[in-house]
Amino acid sequence: MAESPVSTPPAGPTTDVSVRRWRAGESSLERDELAVEAPLEIRLGKQPITVVMRTPGDDEELVAGFLFDEGIIDGAQDIRAISRPPFLSDGERGNVLAVELAHGARRAPSERLFFSVAACGVCGKRSLGELEMEAPVIDAPLRVERAVLAAMPERLRAAQPVFGRTGGLHGAGLFTAQGELLCAREDIGRHNAVDKVVGWALREGRLPLSTSILVVSGRLGYEIAQKGVMAGIPVIGSVGAASSLAVELGERYGVTLATFVRPDGMNVFGPAERIA
Amino acid sequence: MAESPVSTPPAGPTTDVSVRRWRAGESSLERDELAVEAPLEIRLGKQPITVVMRTPGDDEELVAGFLFDEGIIDGAQDIRAISRPPFLSDGERGNVLAVELAHGARRAPSERLFFSVAACGVCGKRSLGELEMEAPVIDAPLRVERAVLAAMPERLRAAQPVFGRTGGLHGAGLFTAQGELLCAREDIGRHNAVDKVVGWALREGRLPLSTSILVVSGRLGYEIAQKGVMAGIPVIGSVGAASSLAVELGERYGVTLATFVRPDGMNVFGPAERIA
Repeated sequence: MAESPVSTPPAGPTTDVSVRRWRAGESSLERDELAVEAPLEIRLGKQPITVVMRTPGDDEELVAGFLFDEGIIDGAQDIRAISRPPFLSDGERGNVLAVELAHGARRAPSERLFFSVAACGVCGKRSLGELEMEAPVIDAPLRVERAVLAAMPERLRAAQPVFGRTGGLHGAGLFTAQGELLCAREDIGRHNAVDKVVGWALREGRLPLSTSILVVSGRLGYEIAQKGVMAGIPVIGSVGAASSLAVELGERYGVTLATFVRPDGMNVFGPAERIA
Repeated sequence: MAESPVSTPPAGPTTDVSVRRWRAGESSLERDELAVEAPLEIRLGKQPITVVMRTPGDDEELVAGFLFDEGIIDGAQDIRAISRPPFLSDGERGNVLAVELAHGARRAPSERLFFSVAACGVCGKRSLGELEMEAPVIDAPLRVERAVLAAMPERLRAAQPVFGRTGGLHGAGLFTAQGELLCAREDIGRHNAVDKVVGWALREGRLPLSTSILVVSGRLGYEIAQKGVMAGIPVIGSVGAASSLAVELGERYGVTLATFVRPDGMNVFGPAERIA
């Protein structure tokens, strides 16, 4: 059986399916709300470069943030248009976005890019050499009160309408040092949620994000730290644990990482003076 | 600053780093144990085909399971050897494994493979067409008592020594229908943990896993369902939520999915008769 798992995705971030629910020895047939996971093929011109499994919604932001975080574009000026191509098959409809790069965009789509780009910052890369990144060390003087940072995960959670209904989505939020939530996005892939907020910032002309704090709902792995470094974010907070490589990357690029962020505590790696 | 994030990874699955820990308004400088995340470059012969971010340990199983789940090999007989190449640079040491395919392996390494393989079952694929999979529908007559299935996540958790110390690792376990734990593996990537147990089964000559149940510690997304289908697993249980595409894939290939598995309940998608 060789079949594509691709069908036209539901329009929203969730879909209704039939489920048999067991509770305390009793079963019932019910409807359940699931987070939608659907592939998005990204094209540069007519050339497909990657497929991202994402939750539909804010697709243009996802594409813009992805291209930026992968070093394919330097800013909003490098994108002339992002559009849904005409003449798609049924399986492709809603699942394809094409990017037209501006004339003079620093990086023309080269063969190399087609091999190395990938949504999670690592999968799809073929050799250790392709993991190299080109980014400046972050020396932004941002300071945030510990109590303000400690309250951010709860504020992000409150801005995640779909997670509450499905338990299935990661969240990423951008905050000011004063605790104002600038942008929150949800996605089934935690790296996509970060790409979406970076894409939002890119389109708003806010990059680099030297006065912002990124907060993620889950764990803080390499791919989150890498995207934060690319966007120039000086402080990243997470609800879960950090990986060894995220901490290594944070130390190398001057990013402060705060993990297990709770109202009563957190663990801090890297430049600790940013957390007052 | 263009630098590779690659260094020789710590020998074990965890590493000790310095952390500033805040608790109830007091801070102290302590040592913290982090889950190790380190890249593994997989080569077919001398050709790098992909980089996987993984937690070191059971690397050969990870590679075998990855090649199988991606449809590059059909079984253990297609692998002649998996070895660490000599003459590696410092950054490559511990981070590279080379696979020598057996003469007559069904799928010779073709150009296409170099583009499309990826550890998470989707990233790195470049077009929707590359998501197609070739696998039989699973009609295994396995039956499992609901109470037996309900107890599996806790048993998996007990077999995850590193999670308890770091909070940073996903687990995957293979169980018999009677609840015996056959194999448990941990990894920073949930898809890697599944590749590791499938790689274990491949080397033990146990594929297809038509009498086994796969349990994962986190959410059940496309990449988990896809790997389960490839390995012929009739029942997959998860502690977290399923995605829409995982449920779609399960229904198409006849896999029973049980989500939010707890001692007092679970949600069941697909062929419900397997859960008695």
